[in-house]
Amino acid sequence: LMLSAGIGATLGSGLWWWSRRSSALIGRREAMLLVAMTWLLGAAMAAMPYFLWSHLGEGVGTEQPFDSYVDAYFEAMSGLTTTGATVIADIPAVPHSLLLWRALTQWLGGLGIVVLFVAVLPSLGVGARKLYRFEAPGPATESVRPQIRETARVLWLIYFGLTVVEASLLKLAGMSWFDAVAHTFATLSTGGFSTQNASMGYFPSIWIDSIVIVFMVLAGVNFGLFYHLIRGQWRVLWKDTELRVYMLVLLIASVIVAASLVGGRIHSMSGGEAAAADASLGEAARHGVFQVVSIQTTSGFCTADFNWWAFVPQAVLVLLMFVGASAGSTGGGIKIIRIIILFKVLWAEVERVFRPHVVRSIKVGRSVINAELRQSTLAYILGILLLFLIGAGALMLLEASPGIDFKTAATASAATLNNIGPGLGMVGATENYARFSTPSKLVLSLLMALGRLELFAILVLFTPRFWRTD
Amino acid sequence: LMLSAGIGATLGSGLWWWSRRSSALIGRREAMLLVAMTWLLGAAMAAMPYFLWSHLGEGVGTEQPFDSYVDAYFEAMSGLTTTGATVIADIPAVPHSLLLWRALTQWLGGLGIVVLFVAVLPSLGVGARKLYRFEAPGPATESVRPQIRETARVLWLIYFGLTVVEASLLKLAGMSWFDAVAHTFATLSTGGFSTQNASMGYFPSIWIDSIVIVFMVLAGVNFGLFYHLIRGQWRVLWKDTELRVYMLVLLIASVIVAASLVGGRIHSMSGGEAAAADASLGEAARHGVFQVVSIQTTSGFCTADFNWWAFVPQAVLVLLMFVGASAGSTGGGIKIIRIIILFKVLWAEVERVFRPHVVRSIKVGRSVINAELRQSTLAYILGILLLFLIGAGALMLLEASPGIDFKTAATASAATLNNIGPGLGMVGATENYARFSTPSKLVLSLLMALGRLELFAILVLFTPRFWRTD
Repeated sequence: LMLSAGIGATLGSGLWWWSRRSSALIGRREAMLLVAMTWLLGAAMAAMPYFLWSHLGEGVGTEQPFDSYVDAYFEAMSGLTTTGATVIADIPAVPHSLLLWRALTQWLGGLGIVVLFVAVLPSLGVGARKLYRFEAPGPATESVRPQIRETARVLWLIYFGLTVVEASLLKLAGMSWFDAVAHTFATLSTGGFSTQNASMGYFPSIWIDSIVIVFMVLAGVNFGLFYHLIRGQWRVLWKDTELRVYMLVLLIASVIVAASLVGGRIHSMSGGEAAAADASLGEAARHGVFQVVSIQTTSGFCTADFNWWAFVPQAVLVLLMFVGASAGSTGGGIKIIRIIILFKVLWAEVERVFRPHVVRSIKVGRSVINAELRQSTLAYILGILLLFLIGAGALMLLEASPGIDFKTAATASAATLNNIGPGLGMVGATENYARFSTPSKLVLSLLMALGRLELFAILVLFTPRFWRTD
Repeated sequence: LMLSAGIGATLGSGLWWWSRRSSALIGRREAMLLVAMTWLLGAAMAAMPYFLWSHLGEGVGTEQPFDSYVDAYFEAMSGLTTTGATVIADIPAVPHSLLLWRALTQWLGGLGIVVLFVAVLPSLGVGARKLYRFEAPGPATESVRPQIRETARVLWLIYFGLTVVEASLLKLAGMSWFDAVAHTFATLSTGGFSTQNASMGYFPSIWIDSIVIVFMVLAGVNFGLFYHLIRGQWRVLWKDTELRVYMLVLLIASVIVAASLVGGRIHSMSGGEAAAADASLGEAARHGVFQVVSIQTTSGFCTADFNWWAFVPQAVLVLLMFVGASAGSTGGGIKIIRIIILFKVLWAEVERVFRPHVVRSIKVGRSVINAELRQSTLAYILGILLLFLIGAGALMLLEASPGIDFKTAATASAATLNNIGPGLGMVGATENYARFSTPSKLVLSLLMALGRLELFAILVLFTPRFWRTD
């Protein structure tokens, strides 16, 4: 078993290293292809341990969740894209080694995405690099490789440092080393894979909840800011508009959700036992804050079954799914910076109705958002919404018999496209994705990859002109 | 009763004429204010006959639908914005004179919107005038007034001509003059007010259905094209991209909906009697095509209760609610031309990922869509989606007890914002909007005005800078 995991890990990380190293040497088109393939094929590699375990290893004969390779592929893609959606109904029944591999795929996926968006793509001039506010100083094509390597090295150190700190704290708070490491991997990558069916709800400690909340918030911050921080540039941090709005949204959403939970019933899952109790102010705040942070950072951990919650907290959580974390973080979703630009553009458009000739530049912090970037941003948001609808529609069609409700289909689409994990209804906090048919699982896997690579890296593969040699 | 209707009509049309006449004389800011006020206050005027009838006229003592002025305001706003949502549970119980006034508000609202968007606003340089492809030749501020008057005169003649033709055809097909005129008013304005509870389903004639289908389609065409047509410029018509896409979407949606209805059960309402029958190919085609045309043109007439239909036809209808008709028509929704631009921009964005330095201009037909217009278009679509969500959320909150399902809230929001009328669930084809509370009715009225005036004319009222005198 460990051998099979080893093979997978070696191949997987090998592929990842290869992509990271080569992308600086080659053209933009090849780089995009490599990025897309890293995730699409990388998931096929990372799926191997699951499949080998269930068909050659200890899993044979037991009731195991990886009947077909697609199940394993789904789980692996969910890991590499740091989504956290699972097909495993009974998680503790899976051996520790496999659960550690599962958490490791998220950790690698999180690191990969940060390096890709903060170090690699900006240097290549691909995508909306200005959103990451971490630009290479000038288009020095020759020097781009050492520079990427240097940035990547620092990011890796930050990520590793955070990992050591969180794992130690969780151990101190009472977790076993295994649980501490696995949950640290899943926190910093905003992945959300747990070692327990009840997710974080299994660990009834306010300390553990608090530690995880803090590190989820950190994981949702632009890693470029940490880079500035360890270079002593504190001021950059204070002046960062996205960071401020990110904290503000977390705060407001937490207050709304916590307030709407007070007096209602909370179905907690502490110690693995389902229990419903009237919520005190403290309990409402604890579960409300945890769930808001978990969903907005696109982690997907749960302490309570929010499938039971009322319309307002559920609506807030679904909206947060789309808002997501900061650009350049391990989190998914549309990203705070794009939401800021959206509202600034909408406001400017309203003004233009009565002042069509006044040209007002749109700024975020000190940097001007030019017309090209404004268009990219609005197009990206509409692209996400369109794919969300296509995903939900496809699930409704593919699952026509026995049939799923639209709430399940819509939140499954949103929770995979935005790399969160759990949704509502039949994909709720205590449920899993095992019920879906094979074609649906492939659709959901594609949605995860699309969301993780910010759509266009995957979508280019479908344009004929991309493949032409001119 | 007729007197009260007369007062309302005089005041209403007076206000409308005043706005139309003066807008050419004054500044852009005042023009926008006037346009917004025409609909917001015009509805208060147009509500008078309903209120007078139910509190002073014959309606006193009977079970009448206009308890408060807000009910009357809702009905009047639904008329002037050509939405077609009603609070009247039993329509035939309302006297003919009032039903005629109700249809007339739609007819006037339809004419008003065409004149506003095709003749007035383009000359003032307000809004995305290029979308209407009917530009004033140069910014000749002095000559703008006679030109608006001339264009408006021609548009009025076209509208009046279509009215006479349709009413005559409906009379020939077996309707009474009263029904023929009322339904003609509601068809050409894509309003959808009927004189029967069962809407068009009451008239079990394939001829009547066909006539209404044809004129709904015509009402959803840019009236600027008719203007060119009567000047003998046939070629403009053939080359118009929006017209072609509009017909194509109608065709494809009709085929999908009709095909998905075959073999299922259709709950028709012919003769006012609810009846369910297995659908033959012919019946499926008839109801499918009628409903697709009715929803996409944002009319809102019904021949069958589509609340019973399966997911696919319902999903297509809801999507069509947002797509809407052509710019410069009496129809609402986002408009076909914006959908075309959206998909062209999305495609261009995908290409830009691997070719960031290739600047490709985006064209619709022969006209280049510049960066400003692209941004306006995307912002408009996102604005509509945002308001749709706000509307649905507000309804869920305002109707918290006894509570409505999200399907009802969402489609009520979509059906008013896009000026359609009926939605799904508790606002379905055979239902009405009477159940909503007073605050909800005001929210829905505001959504109708926002959608009808393409958002920004109303939204500017909420910006402080609009009211400043600098």
